[in-house]
Amino acid sequence: MAQSRILNIGLIGAGRIGSSHAQLIARAVPNARLAAVADPVEGAAARLAEELKVDAAYTDIAQLLADPEIDAVVITAPARFHAGLVEQSAAVGKAIFCEKPAGMTLDEIDRVRRAVETHGALFRIGFNRRFADGFPQARAMIDAGHIGTPQLLRSTTRDPGLANPAAVAPWTIFLETLIHDFDTLNFLNPGARAVQVHAVADALVAPDFKDAGLLDTAVVTIRYDNGAIATAEASFSAAYGYDTRAEAFGSAGMVTAGDLAASSLRYYGPAGLAGDTVRADTQSMRGAYTAELQAFTDTALGQPTDGPGVEAAGEALRIALGCIESCGTGAPVTLDIVEAIR
Amino acid sequence: MAQSRILNIGLIGAGRIGSSHAQLIARAVPNARLAAVADPVEGAAARLAEELKVDAAYTDIAQLLADPEIDAVVITAPARFHAGLVEQSAAVGKAIFCEKPAGMTLDEIDRVRRAVETHGALFRIGFNRRFADGFPQARAMIDAGHIGTPQLLRSTTRDPGLANPAAVAPWTIFLETLIHDFDTLNFLNPGARAVQVHAVADALVAPDFKDAGLLDTAVVTIRYDNGAIATAEASFSAAYGYDTRAEAFGSAGMVTAGDLAASSLRYYGPAGLAGDTVRADTQSMRGAYTAELQAFTDTALGQPTDGPGVEAAGEALRIALGCIESCGTGAPVTLDIVEAIR
Amino acid sequence: MAQSRILNIGLIGAGRIGSSHAQLIARAVPNARLAAVADPVEGAAARLAEELKVDAAYTDIAQLLADPEIDAVVITAPARFHAGLVEQSAAVGKAIFCEKPAGMTLDEIDRVRRAVETHGALFRIGFNRRFADGFPQARAMIDAGHIGTPQLLRSTTRDPGLANPAAVAPWTIFLETLIHDFDTLNFLNPGARAVQVHAVADALVAPDFKDAGLLDTAVVTIRYDNGAIATAEASFSAAYGYDTRAEAFGSAGMVTAGDLAASSLRYYGPAGLAGDTVRADTQSMRGAYTAELQAFTDTALGQPTDGPGVEAAGEALRIALGCIESCGTGAPVTLDIVEAIR
Amino acid sequence: MAQSRILNIGLIGAGRIGSSHAQLIARAVPNARLAAVADPVEGAAARLAEELKVDAAYTDIAQLLADPEIDAVVITAPARFHAGLVEQSAAVGKAIFCEKPAGMTLDEIDRVRRAVETHGALFRIGFNRRFADGFPQARAMIDAGHIGTPQLLRSTTRDPGLANPAAVAPWTIFLETLIHDFDTLNFLNPGARAVQVHAVADALVAPDFKDAGLLDTAVVTIRYDNGAIATAEASFSAAYGYDTRAEAFGSAGMVTAGDLAASSLRYYGPAGLAGDTVRADTQSMRGAYTAELQAFTDTALGQPTDGPGVEAAGEALRIALGCIESCGTGAPVTLDIVEAIR
Repeated sequence: MAQSRILNIGLIGAGRIGSSHAQLIARAVPNARLAAVADPVEGAAARLAEELKVDAAYTDIAQLLADPEIDAVVITAPARFHAGLVEQSAAVGKAIFCEKPAGMTLDEIDRVRRAVETHGALFRIGFNRRFADGFPQARAMIDAGHIGTPQLLRSTTRDPGLANPAAVAPWTIFLETLIHDFDTLNFLNPGARAVQVHAVADALVAPDFKDAGLLDTAVVTIRYDNGAIATAEASFSAAYGYDTRAEAFGSAGMVTAGDLAASSLRYYGPAGLAGDTVRADTQSMRGAYTAELQAFTDTALGQPTDGPGVEAAGEALRIALGCIESCGTGAPVTLDIVEAIR
Repeated sequence: MAQSRILNIGLIGAGRIGSSHAQLIARAVPNARLAAVADPVEGAAARLAEELKVDAAYTDIAQLLADPEIDAVVITAPARFHAGLVEQSAAVGKAIFCEKPAGMTLDEIDRVRRAVETHGALFRIGFNRRFADGFPQARAMIDAGHIGTPQLLRSTTRDPGLANPAAVAPWTIFLETLIHDFDTLNFLNPGARAVQVHAVADALVAPDFKDAGLLDTAVVTIRYDNGAIATAEASFSAAYGYDTRAEAFGSAGMVTAGDLAASSLRYYGPAGLAGDTVRADTQSMRGAYTAELQAFTDTALGQPTDGPGVEAAGEALRIALGCIESCGTGAPVTLDIVEAIR
Repeated sequence: MAQSRILNIGLIGAGRIGSSHAQLIARAVPNARLAAVADPVEGAAARLAEELKVDAAYTDIAQLLADPEIDAVVITAPARFHAGLVEQSAAVGKAIFCEKPAGMTLDEIDRVRRAVETHGALFRIGFNRRFADGFPQARAMIDAGHIGTPQLLRSTTRDPGLANPAAVAPWTIFLETLIHDFDTLNFLNPGARAVQVHAVADALVAPDFKDAGLLDTAVVTIRYDNGAIATAEASFSAAYGYDTRAEAFGSAGMVTAGDLAASSLRYYGPAGLAGDTVRADTQSMRGAYTAELQAFTDTALGQPTDGPGVEAAGEALRIALGCIESCGTGAPVTLDIVEAIR
Repeated sequence: MAQSRILNIGLIGAGRIGSSHAQLIARAVPNARLAAVADPVEGAAARLAEELKVDAAYTDIAQLLADPEIDAVVITAPARFHAGLVEQSAAVGKAIFCEKPAGMTLDEIDRVRRAVETHGALFRIGFNRRFADGFPQARAMIDAGHIGTPQLLRSTTRDPGLANPAAVAPWTIFLETLIHDFDTLNFLNPGARAVQVHAVADALVAPDFKDAGLLDTAVVTIRYDNGAIATAEASFSAAYGYDTRAEAFGSAGMVTAGDLAASSLRYYGPAGLAGDTVRADTQSMRGAYTAELQAFTDTALGQPTDGPGVEAAGEALRIALGCIESCGTGAPVTLDIVEAIR
């Protein structure tokens, strides 16, 4: 594989983010080739394959994994299948890019870790914020010492709307939304580990679904072993669009990343100044999605790049699991205990 | 007093903020006159009075209160004397502007409330953020319904440096710094009451003083009875200056207030773009300090204005007291309990 | 006068800008005292004096000038009287702050220069941009060499509206509006002299008044003897308010100054982002007006400050006169010729 | 061709911008295929073709034009060859995307127009600003009436550096750099025609090359037949990077487009605030380059899109030619005369 100039990628899961990643692999990552698509939903893989002129489409994922021409997989199946798919993919020697989370439990993360280590597989997780506009630059400033020791951090994710509250799986806000913020905070506090979390969450967007377990708004406080105190905050419904920002404050300064403006256009009229805002992740994160797939492809082809792996997946997940625990007790949770009980 | 065109003000406490307020009363509030200064520290009142050409300077505060020509007092003494001074001032018919906090305990707030009600005194507390650039405009947008129901709020205060950690009284970060943020959050969530708080605080700026009780960095999570979740955050040492920002997010939109830039100047050179930042409260808050004293003066002279009174003072203090309780238990604290125990 | 701690100022001209300056002298410049107001319009001086509790009000300017207690005059009369009033004031030993322009012709400027030199009078002209937010900081960056040699400059003045086109005196856009920009460009290109100007101007706001000589929109190109090319641009009617910005680009970088936002408030809603804009000069320039009067007062009291004098007044005027000439010929005009013909 | 789903493109000219366009065609425009590259410079086409895995590389452009499988050409040869290449390409039925300028004289533009009309060829010119961040949005605001009647416009292009002043062809600043600004101004003043121009230009970046005819800094004033006055301004050397901004002010408001910041990152430290700036066109214009090639491809494949054609090419060129004339006379030039003399 290292000798090949093009990485043949099989995509597993042809849903919303799968389709988006498929397009980027097919069109925006020059040294990647979308070679196959698999999805158990009848017709889903075929439709996407036809649209992107991909040769192979499977409803049976095993067939994709069995194809020796496939060098790598991009896993965009539902979260509960991630760990199992990683194990299967690693076993047949594929390089693996897996959407977040890598697993739903720390046991699953352990299984992922073992599979990857046993088979020497490349593993990357889709923590896109690490590649988003302003975020890697923020980390570079931190690595260069410009903020000194991190003391106060903040990361926000607000989605533009909640179409179907009934379809939201329990704890989604922690396991699938805020997990980006947990990773962002870990990323912006390099070398430190979260030691305690406290979560406050509610159904403020769709209160009728609270009894059914919906949490659509949350604020999480995280303490790190270097003393830093971080806040992660999410909402499933921002009237103005898609909002992902971060801030890291330390003994020597502060960095901020994330921009709400959709373009450089500004209008000045009788009502004052105005501009458009980012409306969707595919708008502001297109560059990040491309960059993370590019970095994965380059690494798989023998050119090492930085990117989040199993370690980062586990570190973010333990915070998310701590939040679930904290929601139950209503109190702060020490993360060592979360790990001990698995 | 209502007939007079000029309000004769006596200032009690000639320290840093007292001197600043004295100058603004003397020079920037046209219908106010700084008529007397009192400070028990030998020479302090005299020096300030001479500088500002004020006729009367006292070391005995009682003399200032006894002067029938004094219509109003501005209390800038240390916080522990506030409640007592309010009581004395109300008893002799003065209008009262008191720096925050109005009292150190809910009992003191009750004493302040009774004194003010009994004597029909005008009472204003120096919650300057309500008059600071962008903040009243944010509240006006909220009142007009533009953000819908508040869901997520944030307020930050970061001071430019901590000269003498040993001189910081216990719980200062809650009672004197974050109390501004608590009031700001209350102000931006009109009609709602805080019901629970959780504080995480540490000595990250001056860790050597942690054992002596110093807390110089804190993050507080507040739940309101309308469901909103708020974060207040403070540091005693921001390398880039003085940082006061707020954000209120609701079902229909978001407002933000506070600007870190010291001026409109931007420089673009080989290293990129650059600009200066606000370095001190007296730089960015001069307008707010003037406006709050102007509003107080106008009200005292018979022209009603909006401004924070005993109610606001009490609401912010109960959050601060909840924080102190939360620091002790390490857990969230329900504010009704705080009130019950007084 | 140097020994006195307070500067007694007589204001000449109680119109719009006169009233604004009067208030600032009375209230915002601590070591200045508004001692008298004069205006030949019956009642104008008396009204302003009463409002500001000024002791003396005159309809005869000579009376004000004859008052030995008056240390200094602030001239806010119509532009055509400026030079004569400066001569009279200098002759009786007053320090002089004169609104722009100092004169309508280069001969008038010469008369002003001679009067000031003969009597050793302090003379300052009201080029407020030199004291406006961001502009002195821009100059400081230029003085420190951060933009290298100036090459391209720009200054803009846009007024919020044109209430009465019929009342606009001929060439007002050059002599009274753009003269600020000409001075700003001179200020941001220190040591250089304008050598050629080309003006394009029209009545685009009120085209019906074009035949009556109105010019309400103009773009001026200026060449300097250090090679720099500058653009000055003005409109009498900006729908969004009052707009004063400048930009200086050189071999090593660029500085920009001027901000259209009225406050730090930003609103993010379904339509995107929004904020209010500056609506009037008295809103964004209050600090500049205060600062220029403060600098004048300090200098008059013996504490030297920087500020524009006769030289700056003449340099800006020759550009304005070049514009008038250029409008006549439709071609660029060499400024030496303008000066030669006076 | 209309039936085909993929547009086979032949690129003519493998220099800097040709290589950039080649990469975008090969990788970023899904329904385009880079089928051939031609460049008379020995090895240039072959190298680019190999890098991008393009099947055909020619040193003889005629061979590329003779290939019946090639549907369209992208002309990135030196400007003096543009008109001739357009004629040859149109004659053999190719769709044509031509880098600016379409011709060096109005006669060349006429030849381009006749060739395109005679053969019914699709013709697009690479005026990238029409597709750049903020610029189409600005035009949309103008089309929707939000700025009213345009009165004052501005467009700036500043390149990051001038490596080899000796290699700059005469009048490059007008014909190849400012031509973007002339088109931008035309684009932001829809329906209006330039009637008069005045250019001021100099060699301020590399003064030693002035005698050799170098102009590296220029300011152009343009009058339009709707009264609007526009300024176009360029420098070949901006210390902070690549700077393309525009502003359109009218009777009802203003739009601005263009952003100097390279990312959303901001740093706040002891020296104030800081951020990186855009350093190269390939950084900030990548999206614009892709979008203009995408629009061309879609149109060629039967899906009409908006984009600049011969008309826009001619309108911008006549302003550029007017500038050259104006530099000769030192006076404003009426464009009808420019056209009359051809």
